Amino acid sequence: MEKRLPNITIPPLDDEMGKTVREYVDSLTKPLGSLGRLEEIVIELAKMTSNPFPQITRPGVIVFAADHGVTAEGISAFPKEVTEQMVRNFLNGGAAINVFSKSIDAHLRIIDIGVSVDIEEEELISKKIRYGTANFYQEDAMSIIEAINAVEIGYEQGQQMINMGVKCLILGEMGIGNTTSSSAILAAISRQNLESLVGSGTGITAERIIHKQKVIRKALKERKPNPNDPIDILSKVGGLEIAGMVGAMLAGASNRIPILVDGFISTTAALVAKMISSQVTEYIFIGHRSVEPGHDIAIELLGKKPLLDLGMRLGEGSGAAMAFPILHSATLMLREMATFTQAGISNKN
Amino acid sequence: MEKRLPNITIPPLDDEMGKTVREYVDSLTKPLGSLGRLEEIVIELAKMTSNPFPQITRPGVIVFAADHGVTAEGISAFPKEVTEQMVRNFLNGGAAINVFSKSIDAHLRIIDIGVSVDIEEEELISKKIRYGTANFYQEDAMSIIEAINAVEIGYEQGQQMINMGVKCLILGEMGIGNTTSSSAILAAISRQNLESLVGSGTGITAERIIHKQKVIRKALKERKPNPNDPIDILSKVGGLEIAGMVGAMLAGASNRIPILVDGFISTTAALVAKMISSQVTEYIFIGHRSVEPGHDIAIELLGKKPLLDLGMRLGEGSGAAMAFPILHSATLMLREMATFTQAGISNKN
Repeated sequence: MEKRLPNITIPPLDDEMGKTVREYVDSLTKPLGSLGRLEEIVIELAKMTSNPFPQITRPGVIVFAADHGVTAEGISAFPKEVTEQMVRNFLNGGAAINVFSKSIDAHLRIIDIGVSVDIEEEELISKKIRYGTANFYQEDAMSIIEAINAVEIGYEQGQQMINMGVKCLILGEMGIGNTTSSSAILAAISRQNLESLVGSGTGITAERIIHKQKVIRKALKERKPNPNDPIDILSKVGGLEIAGMVGAMLAGASNRIPILVDGFISTTAALVAKMISSQVTEYIFIGHRSVEPGHDIAIELLGKKPLLDLGMRLGEGSGAAMAFPILHSATLMLREMATFTQAGISNKN
Repeated sequence: MEKRLPNITIPPLDDEMGKTVREYVDSLTKPLGSLGRLEEIVIELAKMTSNPFPQITRPGVIVFAADHGVTAEGISAFPKEVTEQMVRNFLNGGAAINVFSKSIDAHLRIIDIGVSVDIEEEELISKKIRYGTANFYQEDAMSIIEAINAVEIGYEQGQQMINMGVKCLILGEMGIGNTTSSSAILAAISRQNLESLVGSGTGITAERIIHKQKVIRKALKERKPNPNDPIDILSKVGGLEIAGMVGAMLAGASNRIPILVDGFISTTAALVAKMISSQVTEYIFIGHRSVEPGHDIAIELLGKKPLLDLGMRLGEGSGAAMAFPILHSATLMLREMATFTQAGISNKN
């Protein structure tokens, strides 16, 4: 019998709670609407969490790491060994996501869901499905079962974070070659031409971007991912860390936990999650606008607007972690500001 | 003898330190340039502070409060009593700037530099120059001496914060009617037409925006502020809290302390400070892009790019305080990330 993803139930937003909080926000000591997106954010958080004073601390950051067989085609600026080396850097606390997780007091977990070598480190959560994907320029990246398993592992990891008390999920990834995989996924879903969505990733030249486009074009032609089947897309041109993020996002939404998505790769994962269960998008914020050109396309398909636009393109969840203080300030505004009545302040003329 | 502002010396940026930090940033474990504006920010901070590992904590927030005689012309959505009421709200901890100052662990001081009534509260710093400005629709807002005194008081308050160990100055204001004053100042400096720069402030109707434009147009015609004389502009159509911010910015820059500017009113103050000593702009970051239409014009005249764009228009320093975590994260990146060599990571192919 064919393996299938278990059914995932995502609760609808609590619109009544949204109205209650909208009214309360309007009673706070500030001109009506003057805190702009902070007001929209806290109303969204109230709808997601069904809580009149939504709480998003402590946040949790999950970084899924995996390798990509397609690196054999020379599509990245860095050798694929860097995936493993960066995992070790995460475990030693030296990467950007370590620094930014610490500054928002986040719980950080690193998951090996498919690094191409074994890493024996106590702090690393080993959930390796295979030693990197196959080279999708030549064959499917992984089997259907592996793709489903990767989503399920992501779901479990998300669920575990939530069980630990985490109130906001931040997803990140590490995988040399994964902008190539994400570009292929996004091209399959969006049917946009590759010129508009393939970028320089970690920093390749214009010449190698053209090569990267050629590799993806041929792979899409040969693999023929079904644009309506998220698992088929993942198995043919996806990545294990991308599938892991998909699962973790589904876990967040099904638990009413707000999800803070990072850049191009994470947003592509969000699009795949949306194909599995469309309501997942109701629990998603996009942390920042990445420099990677496909990101705008992916954000638009999700119907979102990023919180930050700082010219970042690092991944690891770094842009999402950077955006967390905005969500947090929105919740503090609600919890700590006085109302006009409390402060005895004259309202509008 | 005519009173004049004392000479203020602003040290030049340390460009050598900027180069050193640029090189160090490029050695950190991330693709070259992938942290975008965070990298630019920390290099700027290094040049400002002449420190290879710039420190911006603890930040200090100074909110200058004053009234505006021009409120008699019905240019604001709120009655002028709200200035006093909001000062009391600040002292009781109920305003947005209290919440956001606390969340960035900032030292917060509220200065009465010209509220139209006496407020006896221990926490309030009373430096009242006069009971609000005069109505500049009918007469000069204040005398030249008062304008100079207000700038000097702002300078002293900035200096005191710095003496207390504050490493980043965030300036805010409270004054019903002060978008009208700021619009008049900006029109005088920029010579742009009023239609492009007068907005709804705390929330007036389209009809009252036209009335606000008429009031400003007539005031500029009658008062004739000299577009090349910052003190003349302040005295004719300025505000005491705006002059206070000007002084505090000059104190920041002359002490090599980074300044985080808020929205429309603060950025207008920065333009006035620039006219007094043009190098002040080298120490300035613009925290956010306000909805107030004149803000874009003021930002462009300063040659800056805001850090956040969240549809805010509250004032009090709230948008600047919201942006502080971005500057802080940039300094943490520099201080805490590992280099490629330290982490034993292969650099680019």
